[in-house]
Amino acid sequence: MDPQHAVIGIDLGGTHVRLGLVRDGRVTGLRKQAMGGLRAPAEVVAFLAAEVRALHAEYGAAAAVGVGVPGIVDPQAGIVLRAPHYPVWRGFPMRQALSDALGCPVAIDNDANAIALGEARYGAGKGLTNFCLLTLGTGVGGGIVLNDQLWRGDAGFAGEVGHIVIEFQGHPCPCGGMGHWEQYCSASGLANLIDASDDPQKIEFLRPFHGESTLVTGTVLLQLAQAGNIFANTLWKKFGAYLGAGVASLTGVLGVEHFVIGGGLVAAWDFFIPEARRSLARRIYPELAQRVVLQRAALGDEGGILGAAALVTVPEGGPCG
Amino acid sequence: MDPQHAVIGIDLGGTHVRLGLVRDGRVTGLRKQAMGGLRAPAEVVAFLAAEVRALHAEYGAAAAVGVGVPGIVDPQAGIVLRAPHYPVWRGFPMRQALSDALGCPVAIDNDANAIALGEARYGAGKGLTNFCLLTLGTGVGGGIVLNDQLWRGDAGFAGEVGHIVIEFQGHPCPCGGMGHWEQYCSASGLANLIDASDDPQKIEFLRPFHGESTLVTGTVLLQLAQAGNIFANTLWKKFGAYLGAGVASLTGVLGVEHFVIGGGLVAAWDFFIPEARRSLARRIYPELAQRVVLQRAALGDEGGILGAAALVTVPEGGPCG
Repeated sequence: MDPQHAVIGIDLGGTHVRLGLVRDGRVTGLRKQAMGGLRAPAEVVAFLAAEVRALHAEYGAAAAVGVGVPGIVDPQAGIVLRAPHYPVWRGFPMRQALSDALGCPVAIDNDANAIALGEARYGAGKGLTNFCLLTLGTGVGGGIVLNDQLWRGDAGFAGEVGHIVIEFQGHPCPCGGMGHWEQYCSASGLANLIDASDDPQKIEFLRPFHGESTLVTGTVLLQLAQAGNIFANTLWKKFGAYLGAGVASLTGVLGVEHFVIGGGLVAAWDFFIPEARRSLARRIYPELAQRVVLQRAALGDEGGILGAAALVTVPEGGPCG
Repeated sequence: MDPQHAVIGIDLGGTHVRLGLVRDGRVTGLRKQAMGGLRAPAEVVAFLAAEVRALHAEYGAAAAVGVGVPGIVDPQAGIVLRAPHYPVWRGFPMRQALSDALGCPVAIDNDANAIALGEARYGAGKGLTNFCLLTLGTGVGGGIVLNDQLWRGDAGFAGEVGHIVIEFQGHPCPCGGMGHWEQYCSASGLANLIDASDDPQKIEFLRPFHGESTLVTGTVLLQLAQAGNIFANTLWKKFGAYLGAGVASLTGVLGVEHFVIGGGLVAAWDFFIPEARRSLARRIYPELAQRVVLQRAALGDEGGILGAAALVTVPEGGPCG
């Protein structure tokens, strides 16, 4: 592979990192590694640099590196302001640190922004002038594409859709706020929905989980719904109702009609999407609701890697690492 | 006045219409007329055309007309999809109808979009690349300026910020939805806040209003707050708390840091803005909250007229009317 045209895309998560060599919109040598207890900036940078070198050793060198980071990122300054999974990061100049370690150009951005860019170039957003990317996973992430460009706002912080207020006096959010959308439409949101339920079936439902709602994962809840469990089905509908209400808000503000939805919880798509569409139709004018398209992201786990790689323009010069 | 360079701006409201001749960013001959019971498309068009001719007779002719309409507008097609104050309007081709009546070019857009354009060119938005205009009046209106342009979304419907969901199970909205922001941060929102209050002072407070919360206008509530009435003060704080929560959502989504706020209720600015700022700071990261600027609109009643006039580009050719 010609190192002049290959770029490494890194999709950094809270528990795992995924990376791969990207060329012509294809991922080669995808690696997935647990981050374990690594949290300090220097440790994480050293680990990522070693991972990049391991990729090089096996698949040849690349000319630049792009990173999607799970947090608030100023992409122009190359700084991570906050990353909930890496609580010690406050104003961490990650781009410079990683560039110093690798000796090549690095670009960073918010992880959902990177996925939006990936879906825009190679996935479900291809051909759409405007769309909003949502990721339903541990939290709710967002990336907004307007006029064929990632919309970053005044200082790079646009698309923080997980933190729109959907319940004025709602569940506390780890960010310090409350009633944020991601407290309802995410993996942790599922536990909140269980806690808030006054359905008498709840006790019986929670028995196998020792009464602990936080032990009910999205995967298990999907299996239960597939097996016909009524309580599990009702929960997915509630999840869908909140999803539709949030989409109603976003389409009202942005005037964007296409929503590309990814993240681990889309596995339960058929169990929450019909209710999401009903909820959306109840909350905005029918003329608007009928224009809104909810579609699944196309790239799966590779979206974050492809998008991170798309953050950088391949420079002239030698390979990095 | 040279008719080649004068344009008429019309700010159509539910109860009144304001219009004036605009040239070089100044309004001449401002007229304010009650709309009375006029609701049918043909009646309203005839009335507006007569008003335009009355302006012409007194101040000289203009070359084109721009109209801000209180509803969902497709500005490219020139169609009003819905206007809550004019319930019989459904897909009303207002631009064509008014253009036929006047024999000159007409442009239409949502009223808050027009105000945003006015503030961007001549008011508090001057020099801002990105900002969000909010109007706090009968409802909550919004207009979004991104990259120095009015952002209209896929089909012209962006900026419907009054209908973001802020209480998942909240007050019903005349649009058919529920829990929308404008059910809390508007004149009708004030009545809802009174109804929802469990403060024992409420009964005493409502006595002069015969127990009817809907009789408490923003003007009266401001006078009471100024006179030191504690219940009135608490209501404005609650209003501010909802305002801050909505601004938190908007700044998270749009990444926009400047909010220009107009509408009749800004008269009570000092009574609700401190709490709005506190509420905002509690709901997003401090690094983001400290960047957000809430400022008053600069143009008052003239903003809608100036902005409506700015919707049209002055054509070659004779005057209209």
